[in-house]
Order: sequence, then structure tokens, then C-alpha cells
Amino acid sequence: MGSVAAPKQDRSRVTRRRLLEAAVACLAEHGWAGSTVSVVAERAGVSRGAAQHHFPTREDLFTAAVEYVAEERTSALRGLVPTGPDRRREVVEEVVALYTGPLFRAALHLWVAASNEEQLRARVTELEGRVGREAHRMTVELLGADESVPGVRETIQGLLDMARGLGLATLLTDDTQRRKRVVAQWASIVDTALG
Amino acid sequence: MGSVAAPKQDRSRVTRRRLLEAAVACLAEHGWAGSTVSVVAERAGVSRGAAQHHFPTREDLFTAAVEYVAEERTSALRGLVPTGPDRRREVVEEVVALYTGPLFRAALHLWVAASNEEQLRARVTELEGRVGREAHRMTVELLGADESVPGVRETIQGLLDMARGLGLATLLTDDTQRRKRVVAQWASIVDTALG
Repeated sequence: MGSVAAPKQDRSRVTRRRLLEAAVACLAEHGWAGSTVSVVAERAGVSRGAAQHHFPTREDLFTAAVEYVAEERTSALRGLVPTGPDRRREVVEEVVALYTGPLFRAALHLWVAASNEEQLRARVTELEGRVGREAHRMTVELLGADESVPGVRETIQGLLDMARGLGLATLLTDDTQRRKRVVAQWASIVDTALG
Repeated sequence: MGSVAAPKQDRSRVTRRRLLEAAVACLAEHGWAGSTVSVVAERAGVSRGAAQHHFPTREDLFTAAVEYVAEERTSALRGLVPTGPDRRREVVEEVVALYTGPLFRAALHLWVAASNEEQLRARVTELEGRVGREAHRMTVELLGADESVPGVRETIQGLLDMARGLGLATLLTDDTQRRKRVVAQWASIVDTALG
């Protein structure tokens, strides 16, 4: 039994992953209005029926997609073991990178759509809370910050808010050069503030 | 002639302002997809013909609307004359307030729409650049910061990016209590960083 079932499960997992990746790319490129299950299925090279088997509704597909890629990115952050004197700067750069790629762009489209669509709102709010808490927890750990010290928690929160603001600034124009300078300066400020 | 023309010009100005305010409220509440010239005209109590006389296209109306309210808000900031020992904290609070109200919500919808719609993109990019430069200039002035000192420019830029990130955090949930603590902590950090 195992030898027959395993490849089928593998195929199903591969199909699911292709749908999720296509959904994020679609959301980042075309926004919520241009992102339907059919468009994503075609992009992934999967039949519409197979797509609906995995994700019965449009909301299921897109919230799962943003969650999937958020997990991929936070896993990458989890694997980061910074060393050396510029350790904290490296961490700040990696944290900002979480918010300035295609994932954040896709998430932004999903958030904005959710702010006006009741059926998305509760799910996206829950998802955003979960992803945000995990990013916060990892940033605290990687920076070696002690949250029992007054102000440290808010320092890290503000840093993550800045990262989201930098993500927003990449929406319409290439902001890479300015961002590098801001990140270098703020990494140094955070380093001093954390002591 | 003057006595006849003046009230007519006044009426035209009032109509224009009502359309702009209705357009921002509409964008903040319903997003780009739900914001048309007809919907705004009805909300403003103005005929569709009169609305199109003032704003020939949908893009004209919404970019003008975001610009109008941005100017209203920066005028308010321009009038701020902070005094006392907590002067810089007061400035940081006012700057963050620029990005956490309905205007920012409307601007966010416009930016996200512009990222996927060619006819909006160039105009919104230009508008965002202009509004951003003015916010930066005023923040520098109000904080009494000296941009000839290395790092000061990037400190202020990061502060404005943080303000935008805090604006984003209010999109789905009421973030007021957390934001107050983050702003208090970062006002103190920025105060130290600026010397």
C-alpha cells in the first residue's frame, strides 16, 4: 500500500505547493481584483478542478498562499546564525528583507483587500497577528534582546514597523539605495538603544 | 461683474472641496475598486455632470483628492509650534498622526491600486514623492535636526518609514494602545540619536 500511496501524496503536495506559489506571484503582480482561482490554476499548470479540490474558495487559496510563503521566509530567518561585530546590523538587514520582497507585496494586496471585504477580514487579521508575533519573537532572539528591560519590547516593535514602512516604500519605485542607508543608520541606533 | 462672479466662484470652490472630501472618504471605506466618480458625486450631493466638469477622469479625481487632504494635514503640521521639555516627543506624535488617519488609509488604497494600474502609477508616484519630501522637510525643521551631521538624514527617514509602518498596522485592527507605547519609546530614542 505504502509504495502506491506515497507517490500520489507526493504529487498532491507538489500540486499544492505550485498553486500556493502561483497564488502569491499572482497577488503581487495583479492585486486582489485580478487574482482568481482560475488565473492561479492556469499559471500553476493545474486544472481548475484540481485547484478547487485543494482550495474550495478563493479566500482559502490566498490566505493559505500568504501563510505558506511567510513560513518559508521565517524559516530562512530561523536558520540565520549571525556572528562577528556587525551581528546586529546583519539581523536588522535580514528582518527588513522579510518585508521588502514579493511576499510582502502579496501580503499588502491581501491586507488592503481584507480591509474592505468582510469574508477575508477575520482570516487575514488572524494570519497577520500570527506571522507578526513569530517575526517579533525571532527578531528578539536574533538580536539577543532582553524584553524584561523596560522599553526593549517597544524598540523591537518600532523596528518591525519601520521594516513594514520600508516595504511599503518599495511598492511604486525601486527604493534599494535609500533603504540601505536607512537600515545601516537604524541598525546602529537599535544597537545603541539595546546596549 | 465682480459681485456676480464672486459667489459663482465660491460655489464652484465649495463643490470642488465637497467632491475631494467625499472621494477620500470613499477610497478609505471602499477601496479603489468600489470608488467611481458616480459614487463620489452621489456622496457629495453633486450631479455627475458637475463632478465631471471639475474632474474629467476617475484618476484626476482621486489623485487630486489625496493631494488635497495631504495638503490639509501638512498645513496642520506646519502650524505646530512645540515648546517645553517634551517638544520632540510631541513632534514625533504629530508626525505619526499624519500616517494613521483616514488620509493614510485612502492613500494606501491609491498606492496599491497604482502598483497594478499603468494609468495611475506615474501620477501617484509623483504625488507620493512630493508629499513625502514635504513631510520630511517639516519633520527636520520641527525636530530642530541638523542634516549636515552624518546619519541625521537617515534617522529622520527611518522615523517616517516607521510612521508609515504604524499606519499600515491600523488597517485591519485598532492599534492605538500599542502605537502609543512604540511612539513614546522611539521619540526618546530619536531624541538621543539627534543629540
